[in-house]
Amino acid sequence: MRLPDVMKRLTRGPQIITLKDAAMISAYTGLSPGDRVVDAGSGSGFLAIYMGNIVRPSGKVFSYEVRGDFATLASANVKRAGLSDFVEVKNKDIFDGIDEKDVDVITLDMPEPWHAIQHAKKALKEGGYLVGYVPSVEQFRTFVLECEKAGLRHEQTIECSVREMIVKERSTRPQTKGLMHTGYVSFIRKGK
Amino acid sequence: MRLPDVMKRLTRGPQIITLKDAAMISAYTGLSPGDRVVDAGSGSGFLAIYMGNIVRPSGKVFSYEVRGDFATLASANVKRAGLSDFVEVKNKDIFDGIDEKDVDVITLDMPEPWHAIQHAKKALKEGGYLVGYVPSVEQFRTFVLECEKAGLRHEQTIECSVREMIVKERSTRPQTKGLMHTGYVSFIRKGK
Amino acid sequence: MRLPDVMKRLTRGPQIITLKDAAMISAYTGLSPGDRVVDAGSGSGFLAIYMGNIVRPSGKVFSYEVRGDFATLASANVKRAGLSDFVEVKNKDIFDGIDEKDVDVITLDMPEPWHAIQHAKKALKEGGYLVGYVPSVEQFRTFVLECEKAGLRHEQTIECSVREMIVKERSTRPQTKGLMHTGYVSFIRKGK
Amino acid sequence: MRLPDVMKRLTRGPQIITLKDAAMISAYTGLSPGDRVVDAGSGSGFLAIYMGNIVRPSGKVFSYEVRGDFATLASANVKRAGLSDFVEVKNKDIFDGIDEKDVDVITLDMPEPWHAIQHAKKALKEGGYLVGYVPSVEQFRTFVLECEKAGLRHEQTIECSVREMIVKERSTRPQTKGLMHTGYVSFIRKGK
Repeated sequence: MRLPDVMKRLTRGPQIITLKDAAMISAYTGLSPGDRVVDAGSGSGFLAIYMGNIVRPSGKVFSYEVRGDFATLASANVKRAGLSDFVEVKNKDIFDGIDEKDVDVITLDMPEPWHAIQHAKKALKEGGYLVGYVPSVEQFRTFVLECEKAGLRHEQTIECSVREMIVKERSTRPQTKGLMHTGYVSFIRKGK
Repeated sequence: MRLPDVMKRLTRGPQIITLKDAAMISAYTGLSPGDRVVDAGSGSGFLAIYMGNIVRPSGKVFSYEVRGDFATLASANVKRAGLSDFVEVKNKDIFDGIDEKDVDVITLDMPEPWHAIQHAKKALKEGGYLVGYVPSVEQFRTFVLECEKAGLRHEQTIECSVREMIVKERSTRPQTKGLMHTGYVSFIRKGK
Repeated sequence: MRLPDVMKRLTRGPQIITLKDAAMISAYTGLSPGDRVVDAGSGSGFLAIYMGNIVRPSGKVFSYEVRGDFATLASANVKRAGLSDFVEVKNKDIFDGIDEKDVDVITLDMPEPWHAIQHAKKALKEGGYLVGYVPSVEQFRTFVLECEKAGLRHEQTIECSVREMIVKERSTRPQTKGLMHTGYVSFIRKGK
Repeated sequence: MRLPDVMKRLTRGPQIITLKDAAMISAYTGLSPGDRVVDAGSGSGFLAIYMGNIVRPSGKVFSYEVRGDFATLASANVKRAGLSDFVEVKNKDIFDGIDEKDVDVITLDMPEPWHAIQHAKKALKEGGYLVGYVPSVEQFRTFVLECEKAGLRHEQTIECSVREMIVKERSTRPQTKGLMHTGYVSFIRKGK
């Protein structure tokens, strides 16, 4: 059973990140084995699991979730995915601070990620990435501008779209209906 | 220096895969540490390097390249990326056969990937992925239909688009010009 | 009551063309008052009505529909739109021939538009447009190549996408779900 | 010579509207023969010419342009397009007022269209459309919210994308590079 199979079997509570967006976050930050990652909020734990799978065996994901019920759900999903050694779900509010130091990548999937910027800046390694993932223009704009005020560098904000091509015996065409928007992903960098 | 920084410093010969497409290939196959991967053709080695970074330390990418000059270039890039232990470039034609067995993922970035289907089928593990990456509709259609004839299962073919959002002091808008198409990615599976 | 209001009140039978695609057909052919237009098949009559509104008062749309029930429906819609003087629905198979001469624009919204190419070529004015509107790649490809064999010129084939932006009090974002594909529009020209 | 041929021969000064966006404005407002239209700013006159061609012979487009050099250029283009009877270019600032009454459609292609809302509201017929065409999110958001404050109704704001499909002897694929963004079109309505 490969990771996409595992993820299909997990329990879905709060809205989960799409695979395409998890892929972009991972690729554009160059997520690698050995990376120390901080993630908030956990939600159902999908992004933490996706990243935990990549950073193992020497890296680790610390996933903050302020709601107790979500933290419990995310922990259960991490366990079912067999990644308990590499993903730790913490029932804590990231706005109260980040315990970890020398972090490579911090991902914020929450409505107001800008409240975590100062904590993120302290926790990040030089060259590390802070990623915001939000649905609206106002949200990524506020996040990006507040990051710049805090002395962090905005590399880019992107929107990723995936469209399936339907192959039938005599015809090939794009899917007719589907997801037209999930969220914007902002890549912010500490240093240089 | 993180992976995107490393990749910017590599030598570019033949057209390289975009980061978004490497991200999709990796995410939709659930590429993981420990995976054994076969890749062809190497080209400049970017996809092999991207995947080699994820499968380490216990996995490996075997990258086939029929042209000697490209194989040399790809090898040099692998070395500069510090991934020589995890990516082996072979100056061989994948149409002559695949040496490896029990392979998790095979990626084909070449004009006529369908000629490698029988070799891929033998080399793949049960549940493993065969991925085709081609620019035209005719190419992915032929690939998908030939895979199905060979008893492999077409999970999906996708096209991924990324658009940057430009954030200025008083305005936010999508980039005006850019890449509108790179290639279609087909995900084919062995078994079940 | 303006045209979009009128169209909302018409009876919908067979799948109707989207407003965006009717807009592209009209704009890229430079549809103008006085134009003589041939349209097939009528379906519910929406494209004929859209074009009839533009070519009036001196122009006319002749809309061919092989099915009696659709022709009746299209006629009723034309009447309700108040365009009976400018749109004539004919219960005829366009593959049997086109009665009109010196036609400015011919639109084919049907599964196999290539069977009408020879008739269209005869009916069209020098410089006139033949437009194919089909959902699949194979269909527009066959249409375009057959047109070229018949000595007509392929100007371009396009796909048009429209995405709505949702404006709320504190947030702006693209619509989350919707139409990802309707059809491809091919613009073919006679002469020069 | 059809309209697209004519437009290719006109003189281009300030950035001109794309055909796709002119098409959307025309289609979504149901622009029709007989319509009285107010347009600002004229720029090179392309949108005014596009609309003038549709509203003739009984309708008219009044196009406001505050810069003398652009007004001269737009007038010359209108003349070359043979539409002088249907498009009148006025070297006036629309922010100083709109002379016309009972207007069906008003189009604003300018950086700060919200300054014209009160004038537009007075000039528009009941059921008439006010259209804003701007490149950034902040611009359409301000325009839409100010229109709503003024008691006008926001029907929708859209973004339209067109991608060409390249047909070669053995391959079909989307164009690789091109325009990814021009502007957002907001449709505002008076009454009901």
